[in-house]
Amino acid sequence: MEILRQSFQIKYDYNVYFTASIFDLNNKALSDFFRNSDTGYLRKIMFVIDEGVNNAQPNLIKNIKAYFSKYCCISLVQDFVIVPGGEECKNDNKCLYDIMEAIDANGIDRHSYLAAIGGGAVLDLAGYVSAIAHRGIKHLRFPTTVLSQNDSGIGVKNGINAFGKKNFIGTFCPPDAVFNDINFLQTLSTRIWKSGISEAIKVALIKDATFFEWIEANQVLLSLRDTEATRYLIKRCAELHLMHIGGADPFEKGSSRPLDFGHWSAHKIESLSKYQILHGEAVAMGIALDTAYSVLNNRLDEAKGQRILALLLKFDFHIDHPLALIHSLQSPLIKGLREFREHLGGNLAITFLSDIGVGEEHNQIDLQLLIKSSEMVSQFAKPYMPLLFQ
Amino acid sequence: MEILRQSFQIKYDYNVYFTASIFDLNNKALSDFFRNSDTGYLRKIMFVIDEGVNNAQPNLIKNIKAYFSKYCCISLVQDFVIVPGGEECKNDNKCLYDIMEAIDANGIDRHSYLAAIGGGAVLDLAGYVSAIAHRGIKHLRFPTTVLSQNDSGIGVKNGINAFGKKNFIGTFCPPDAVFNDINFLQTLSTRIWKSGISEAIKVALIKDATFFEWIEANQVLLSLRDTEATRYLIKRCAELHLMHIGGADPFEKGSSRPLDFGHWSAHKIESLSKYQILHGEAVAMGIALDTAYSVLNNRLDEAKGQRILALLLKFDFHIDHPLALIHSLQSPLIKGLREFREHLGGNLAITFLSDIGVGEEHNQIDLQLLIKSSEMVSQFAKPYMPLLFQ
Repeated sequence: MEILRQSFQIKYDYNVYFTASIFDLNNKALSDFFRNSDTGYLRKIMFVIDEGVNNAQPNLIKNIKAYFSKYCCISLVQDFVIVPGGEECKNDNKCLYDIMEAIDANGIDRHSYLAAIGGGAVLDLAGYVSAIAHRGIKHLRFPTTVLSQNDSGIGVKNGINAFGKKNFIGTFCPPDAVFNDINFLQTLSTRIWKSGISEAIKVALIKDATFFEWIEANQVLLSLRDTEATRYLIKRCAELHLMHIGGADPFEKGSSRPLDFGHWSAHKIESLSKYQILHGEAVAMGIALDTAYSVLNNRLDEAKGQRILALLLKFDFHIDHPLALIHSLQSPLIKGLREFREHLGGNLAITFLSDIGVGEEHNQIDLQLLIKSSEMVSQFAKPYMPLLFQ
Repeated sequence: MEILRQSFQIKYDYNVYFTASIFDLNNKALSDFFRNSDTGYLRKIMFVIDEGVNNAQPNLIKNIKAYFSKYCCISLVQDFVIVPGGEECKNDNKCLYDIMEAIDANGIDRHSYLAAIGGGAVLDLAGYVSAIAHRGIKHLRFPTTVLSQNDSGIGVKNGINAFGKKNFIGTFCPPDAVFNDINFLQTLSTRIWKSGISEAIKVALIKDATFFEWIEANQVLLSLRDTEATRYLIKRCAELHLMHIGGADPFEKGSSRPLDFGHWSAHKIESLSKYQILHGEAVAMGIALDTAYSVLNNRLDEAKGQRILALLLKFDFHIDHPLALIHSLQSPLIKGLREFREHLGGNLAITFLSDIGVGEEHNQIDLQLLIKSSEMVSQFAKPYMPLLFQ
């Protein structure tokens, strides 16, 4: 038998810019980006905007138009596609179709850009469309939430939901650039704002003890949405995520998912709540559970475990939410664990903690210990309950 | 302004195996592949089969079942998805949905395989589904036509049609392996069989004069579908395509498309004929036109140009088909040229010949010379007309 072997490498690179008021006429970040990436082709840019952001910032489109009419080395498509934010846009095929149709109608080709302004869900949807239209058009992201600025919006994944499953369809496809504009956060509700902090706690716990201590020390400032503290939180969290993604397995060919610390249960909690619990909130619940498990499994010092649970509670995360608790082997989260294992191809790979800042992968999980871990979270959170319902 | 830079490389590799009777119980190609790629995960494989192939080979599914029940290191899904062949399956969303639903229902995950048996269109569709389900599941291709075994089926593109445009949606996503089984060609109609030869002529013309001379010398054997000649034609053509794809720009980030020699008009001819003209037939028409242009533009020796046109005619390619001719600046193919330029981002990049075996990129095209080129093809083909209609 004859065999021909094909082998090649593809290089991916992109920048994440940290800025404020990106469409202010004095902000050159975007115009510099287009000038530096000029290839001599006629280029167009079309925007997809999260409805919530557009409503909160009524001048947004006007500002974009003014910006591009001043900096005209790329042609702005006057047709803006507005899509609902949150999981709704990833569930509804009409949103996908609307963007695709606008790409066709406006002649957006492989040298042109689809730019997305919004929370993680809108970025996931627009990123997916960018990845598949014409086998890939250029893509810019303008994340507008803490979560998307420090985690999902700066990474390489996109996706939509199908068959009732989150991200059933999607690709790994890096953006051409990400612009993290701190001012987009101002109009967020406190609930959405805070939900983004859990991913920073997560990445600190598995990668960077110093960062965890910084979050502890700055908990009050962060809860008050202090701009400087927020800027640092997002930047360091984004940096840790980027370092990890750029490491061994950017497109997740293997099964190891250290960044998914706390996520195996989080995905199920979100789904059980019919997405009424936000992703970041569910991650906080998942972190609490897996922290307790790390303690009871004698891998993590108990006092350190308590510091972690206490920090989550100080940010008002409802870590003993009824949907996050495991009372028996029949609990829905145990079913979620089985689904997670199946998703990984039969071999479990779950990250727990051996120290603050040190994640370690386990390939087995003791279900009785998991029930006890849930009980531990529940007991620990009890004294905080009155605070939560003040 | 602070900037974080992300940069990484992804390595892609896969083998193209040349074999015969792949599902014969004595053929170890496939079982060796699965044994060598064993990762310890529970793996499944599900087949998508071209309806035409399934009808022509009534024992195919039975043979596949027998093969996998003998070589059981991977679990065969008993649900086979049959889709119509040709562009129909890329136009009809139901085909896409059927495969996607079967992936969900049968729990095909990222460690499992979607295998596709069929012509180029079915492979394009199944490759696309593999690229987007779960952000990419494993994918095997079993091309069943000359064209897909020597060109489309061994490359890195997939796609479906939308908004009346061929491959409007798709990705660049290499398969995990390709199995070229020469016996699949036996049940092809002569028309479909021969249409695949034009891509071999194309790649010979731009890359390999010796291969072109070999095709000339073996024209009669190839027209008689001689197995050995066919085997060599496919292998050398595939090899040249793989070498090119593995070269500078596998995922076509730039505009240069040397492999698209003869294709700018071919795409439009296919579409004008409502896909009644096969891709390979249209490519032969496109090669003829661009060869004549190369001669009239004083880049290619006239005698060599005539050898090329004569070879195409000996394979019965209808190079002066009315839809392939350009009588004036209002001809539909001139519109096709504008669309092609737009698709490339405004800057034309078309390959012509400076010699047999040597393609060169041109960024301008003389429309009056194109009309004369069409006339030259027409004049040259005239004496052959009676042969075509014998």
